Amino acid sequence: MPTDAIHYLAGREDVLLEELKEIVRIPSQSGTPDSYPDVRRAAEWCSARMKRAGLENVAILETGLHPILYGDWLHAPEAPTVLIYAHYDVQPATPLDLWESPPFEPEVRDGRLYGRGSADDKSGIVTTIAAVEALIATGGPGVNVKFIFEGEEEIGSPSFEASLEKERKRFACDLVLSADGGQWSADQPCVILGLRGMCVGEIHVQGPRGDQHSGLHGGALMNPLEALARILAAVRRPDGKIAIEGFYDEVVDPTPADRAAIARVPFDEKAFPGELGVPESAGEPGFTILERSWIRPTFEVNGIWGGHTGPGPKTIIPSAAHAKFSCRLVANQNPDRIFEQIVAHVGRNAPGGVVAKVTREEVGATPYSIAASHPANRIVSEVLAEVFGKAPYEIRTGGSIPVVPIFKRILGAPTVFTGSGTNDSNLHAPNEFVYVRNIHRGTRVLAKVLPRLARLPRAG
Amino acid sequence: MPTDAIHYLAGREDVLLEELKEIVRIPSQSGTPDSYPDVRRAAEWCSARMKRAGLENVAILETGLHPILYGDWLHAPEAPTVLIYAHYDVQPATPLDLWESPPFEPEVRDGRLYGRGSADDKSGIVTTIAAVEALIATGGPGVNVKFIFEGEEEIGSPSFEASLEKERKRFACDLVLSADGGQWSADQPCVILGLRGMCVGEIHVQGPRGDQHSGLHGGALMNPLEALARILAAVRRPDGKIAIEGFYDEVVDPTPADRAAIARVPFDEKAFPGELGVPESAGEPGFTILERSWIRPTFEVNGIWGGHTGPGPKTIIPSAAHAKFSCRLVANQNPDRIFEQIVAHVGRNAPGGVVAKVTREEVGATPYSIAASHPANRIVSEVLAEVFGKAPYEIRTGGSIPVVPIFKRILGAPTVFTGSGTNDSNLHAPNEFVYVRNIHRGTRVLAKVLPRLARLPRAG
Repeated sequence: MPTDAIHYLAGREDVLLEELKEIVRIPSQSGTPDSYPDVRRAAEWCSARMKRAGLENVAILETGLHPILYGDWLHAPEAPTVLIYAHYDVQPATPLDLWESPPFEPEVRDGRLYGRGSADDKSGIVTTIAAVEALIATGGPGVNVKFIFEGEEEIGSPSFEASLEKERKRFACDLVLSADGGQWSADQPCVILGLRGMCVGEIHVQGPRGDQHSGLHGGALMNPLEALARILAAVRRPDGKIAIEGFYDEVVDPTPADRAAIARVPFDEKAFPGELGVPESAGEPGFTILERSWIRPTFEVNGIWGGHTGPGPKTIIPSAAHAKFSCRLVANQNPDRIFEQIVAHVGRNAPGGVVAKVTREEVGATPYSIAASHPANRIVSEVLAEVFGKAPYEIRTGGSIPVVPIFKRILGAPTVFTGSGTNDSNLHAPNEFVYVRNIHRGTRVLAKVLPRLARLPRAG
Repeated sequence: MPTDAIHYLAGREDVLLEELKEIVRIPSQSGTPDSYPDVRRAAEWCSARMKRAGLENVAILETGLHPILYGDWLHAPEAPTVLIYAHYDVQPATPLDLWESPPFEPEVRDGRLYGRGSADDKSGIVTTIAAVEALIATGGPGVNVKFIFEGEEEIGSPSFEASLEKERKRFACDLVLSADGGQWSADQPCVILGLRGMCVGEIHVQGPRGDQHSGLHGGALMNPLEALARILAAVRRPDGKIAIEGFYDEVVDPTPADRAAIARVPFDEKAFPGELGVPESAGEPGFTILERSWIRPTFEVNGIWGGHTGPGPKTIIPSAAHAKFSCRLVANQNPDRIFEQIVAHVGRNAPGGVVAKVTREEVGATPYSIAASHPANRIVSEVLAEVFGKAPYEIRTGGSIPVVPIFKRILGAPTVFTGSGTNDSNLHAPNEFVYVRNIHRGTRVLAKVLPRLARLPRAG
């Protein structure tokens, strides 16, 4: 069966590339109101394509903003159900003048297809439909398949959680297969074993009523900017460890196997500072740079403001000071508990003479991790090795994908990742591209993985 | 002679009030380009008024921006020379909607003359000319008198130092009498014994090239905002003392007499936090609030910025962080040496992984102090006690008047202060006013002080 599907796909490579170009031409920028009609067009394109592929019950589900697409093939009653996730919206293409070819006029150069969304994540849309189409056309995928494509991923998936909650029966599944992952490099595959979570907020320090003249009262008032500096400086110990009480309590320490897998991933620690333009790297002692970025939690100040920031001097004690912060969290840190710890930290470290408070942003995500030994990961790894001819790296990503913990919470299903983009794909940047050979590899990976997932135990 | 001048002035009180109204009507806002022609008109008004008063060699001296006025009466060859300082420019009147009567339409209500500049410092212009006029008309002031009126005081006197340097012969004197001082309250006089100096600059912390994604690199880079917080937090010890190495080395500690004089000034330490809207006061241990504000040095952060400061979250490690600072200095701190100490402090406290530098603003002033026992101060105190019927408080001001150390440096002359404004005059704020009775007291004080200054030893 898989062999048939692979054969079927081999005859359709040109068609598949043309399809990807077709959807890249639709500028479905979900955060750009002028593009909202194009986002809708992209959803309709997906719906029509799903139907043509043989999917059933295809539906455009309305949300507060951009719709969610559904489609299924449910003819394997004894087999597990796999929910395939991708997103049809894209990042804004600005700044346009940095693109070598127009972002919405896809062009192949040097074996790469250039265009906004070519990698992130329209290759996910096109490859998943094509793989399932090939399986249906050659006897069926061997598992039940459902699709969920969203149109708000690039703006933080604001409608996703409520929509999934409302439609939890429709989307019930045993496993989520996200086509919004990617590969390490052009010819080196990878499996993603963890995502960091987030806890985001602001610290506000209130000092005197109105800005005060530093000649009049300087020396007798606590300066809110200094108070904020003291609160923020106290977040970290001199050795680089975060000093917020309890911060590391629920962090799952990496096993020797985890660390060995990360150490297998080539990374030039010496070149890193030069690439980023800094004198040296920094961070938690006892961990490599990749470990710091992937499996260790952080506290970052994202912005700070207060007092006079225009040109020239103004000798004031400002009335207030503000900072934005975000923590990247790792399993099993809980964003709610971390927020409480930050509130307590600010309370303990705010000097007298000012009032400090912490507010929370409605952005955040639970950290996620999945074992390399999970049966679905074993299958994905095995197929990647077959298709790429190399064992995949086992990596983590330091960023967050909010939908993954949402799938876990609402559907009870873990997520495994595939994808055609690579670390060099210029995601979210000008000149985004996908290697043409990886569009086809990605389709073949899906066509091989799905039937093997029939071996998965069912959730019940 | 003084008695004659006092008698002369008593007959001209209405004229004097009308004169003050006349010059208050000229909106000589030195920092507002639209008002530049009015600043010039105010200078011309002063020139004409000086001539009418019997002053000689009256001249409008051009500078880079607003002119300096000169005039003299030099017919006491054996007596010392007193240089009278005031400024004819005013602060901007904005925000206009908070004024109860228009700022440039002077109006007397409840014994107060309201209008921008009524106290600061057009009362200084009008009272000094009127006092010298009265003395000339009744036999001469008994000392040589020179006038220097500037038009850039409210914008930091940018042309003053160069102009004085160029004209040091013209302005040579034994003593400066500044009419830009003031009294403690409506009926309580004061003498000013010290001004704090300033050292002003910015701290710039450079981190990675461009803002970095905190999901990608968070944990492996030093965050420039955190680095800045650590530098600023290290400026003060937990007990409130400034921790910059060497900062207090040249501070002249107050004598028991200094502290006793300050303790005589009524100040409600308990009410202070409530008035400023803070939970408690702060500052250097072992000093009262007035001592902290007047005779102890400070380090204040005046502004801070960096990273994402707009609405909503943005999970970045920002590329750079910035702060503006200003120190208020006391005798005998040297602004140049303090700046070097700050540079060294930033160097010692900047964490690895960023590059920090300090820049200096061309604003600054040497701190100034004059003994209560200086003969000129004894004379001013004695006259204030006669005119107000109360011994003056001996105060300091926590602010800086850049021209005072400039007089000291270029002319070698100390400065004593008189003035008609009071602590409640709403200087630099809407509804600025001067008590009408203090315009006349101020004129009488000058008419009595000048002849007695004939007793001063001459500089040489």
